[in-house]
Amino acid sequence: MKRLGDIGEDALIARLVGLVPRDACPLAGPGDDCAVIDLFPESARLLLLKTDGLVERVHYLADAPARSVGWKAAARVVSDFAAMGGHPEHFLITLALPPETLVTWVEDVYRGIGGCLEKFGGTLAGGETSSVPVGSAAVISIAATGRVEREQLVLRSTGHVGDLLFVTGRLGGSLGGKHLNFIPRLREAAWLVTHYKPTAMMDLSDGLAKDLPRLAAASCCGFRLDESALPLTVGCTIAQALGDGEDFELLFSICPTRAADLYSDWVRVFPDLPLTRVGILVEEGHSDDLGGAGWDHFFRPC
Amino acid sequence: MKRLGDIGEDALIARLVGLVPRDACPLAGPGDDCAVIDLFPESARLLLLKTDGLVERVHYLADAPARSVGWKAAARVVSDFAAMGGHPEHFLITLALPPETLVTWVEDVYRGIGGCLEKFGGTLAGGETSSVPVGSAAVISIAATGRVEREQLVLRSTGHVGDLLFVTGRLGGSLGGKHLNFIPRLREAAWLVTHYKPTAMMDLSDGLAKDLPRLAAASCCGFRLDESALPLTVGCTIAQALGDGEDFELLFSICPTRAADLYSDWVRVFPDLPLTRVGILVEEGHSDDLGGAGWDHFFRPC
Repeated sequence: MKRLGDIGEDALIARLVGLVPRDACPLAGPGDDCAVIDLFPESARLLLLKTDGLVERVHYLADAPARSVGWKAAARVVSDFAAMGGHPEHFLITLALPPETLVTWVEDVYRGIGGCLEKFGGTLAGGETSSVPVGSAAVISIAATGRVEREQLVLRSTGHVGDLLFVTGRLGGSLGGKHLNFIPRLREAAWLVTHYKPTAMMDLSDGLAKDLPRLAAASCCGFRLDESALPLTVGCTIAQALGDGEDFELLFSICPTRAADLYSDWVRVFPDLPLTRVGILVEEGHSDDLGGAGWDHFFRPC
Repeated sequence: MKRLGDIGEDALIARLVGLVPRDACPLAGPGDDCAVIDLFPESARLLLLKTDGLVERVHYLADAPARSVGWKAAARVVSDFAAMGGHPEHFLITLALPPETLVTWVEDVYRGIGGCLEKFGGTLAGGETSSVPVGSAAVISIAATGRVEREQLVLRSTGHVGDLLFVTGRLGGSLGGKHLNFIPRLREAAWLVTHYKPTAMMDLSDGLAKDLPRLAAASCCGFRLDESALPLTVGCTIAQALGDGEDFELLFSICPTRAADLYSDWVRVFPDLPLTRVGILVEEGHSDDLGGAGWDHFFRPC
């Protein structure tokens, strides 16, 4: 009898998705950052849906500042909307908390969520609270709707062989604090889809070594990665940049003919945020071996 | 320093909702069964949003059949859409599970969710999986979108003094098994909003003693309850019908001039499901005292 720790997250999801009715022709695959719903075909806008959860002792420690925990919970979802070229709209917050939780702690989590929504848009539409047994980890689950202009939607499955791969910001060392106070790249993504629409895009949540193969596989491509070019967080190693996870930077591919113009415009518009070419999409089956690093919720290779 | 167990669920929610930006003029209050979003004002349809969570050892025991746990997780959400006169559409499933969880258990939970969606409509749009620390309770959080025809939307806040109160089915004894295999009243609610649109409606999740005061308060009314008329589950007491919770029947109010026709039509259309008049909405401040029974996730009065 296999347990979750034996098979890992991606294998679990692959086994589950066939057990529930799905949309016949979804606009985005089940592995993309958000679900995309064409609710009103006559409209220029598409509906985005996302759910995400934070678990105590997995995504944050009990002594982490509660406002930062709330910020992180909301900012992860905002980051996923950004990765599709979209914007957040309506949020649903589900809290599963032990009865011994301090009321002020929960209020500060909400203040952190509120601070993120004030900065990046989005409103509270509803929520649900539940107790968990004494001693169980608290769970903060956020689901949200977003919007994206039909012509600005970017999937992770539409990259092409020969497209160049870029990442924003610096990678690695998230546990040094960045995982609690990162800035979702909403503004940058909105600029990208307007001026240099990527052929494919996603946000880096599980580490480049885990996420880049996902983008490449979704696009039916392989990848080459120039590890020496990786924009390392100060004090971090290449292994950390590949495997720490929770960078919440953008990874995207772009047609090589546009790369030079993109880079010179980017430096002018976002002078404080590095943009780094890290590799290229190649034919399927010709990928570099990244050694399986990156974050997996259930599977821990020895 | 107050803890959640000191103040209870309703007081907690009241303290939280002001801490996060909200829609300026929501179509439904934060306490209603679903959020209602007017996404495309030119459309005859409104968007419904709902999130809900099941926690191991709170909403189900570890030895409960996994398919029933999945059914319950989805059916609770379907019941909320029914209570607004709507239908389910796109589901997001967040699983937070200990790594020792059996893969077959998770698959059976998904099969249970799938069975519910096949019966009542709705498709899987996406999901998220996370680990929880060893020994922590599993959490299954489901968020979903639904749709409701604009003219069929029913809130819990629009009842009037003098409206008669009805409940479907039988109340009490949910822990005898009904809480795991209940039938959400989607078909019945759809018939009601088409033929005898209630003035207010909600589903009974926390017990009539908790939920009826909520409907009345949202409608700025009081209520009188005829306890002797309550449709008791076989073997249950009035106290159980009031306080057990998880009945997932409909509670609704209707103009008294329509009650006789409603009742005779109901018996013809739904001969196997009781419909019972249990009370009346009265002026605010003149409610019966139900003694504070009903389910509260955090607060346990001595």
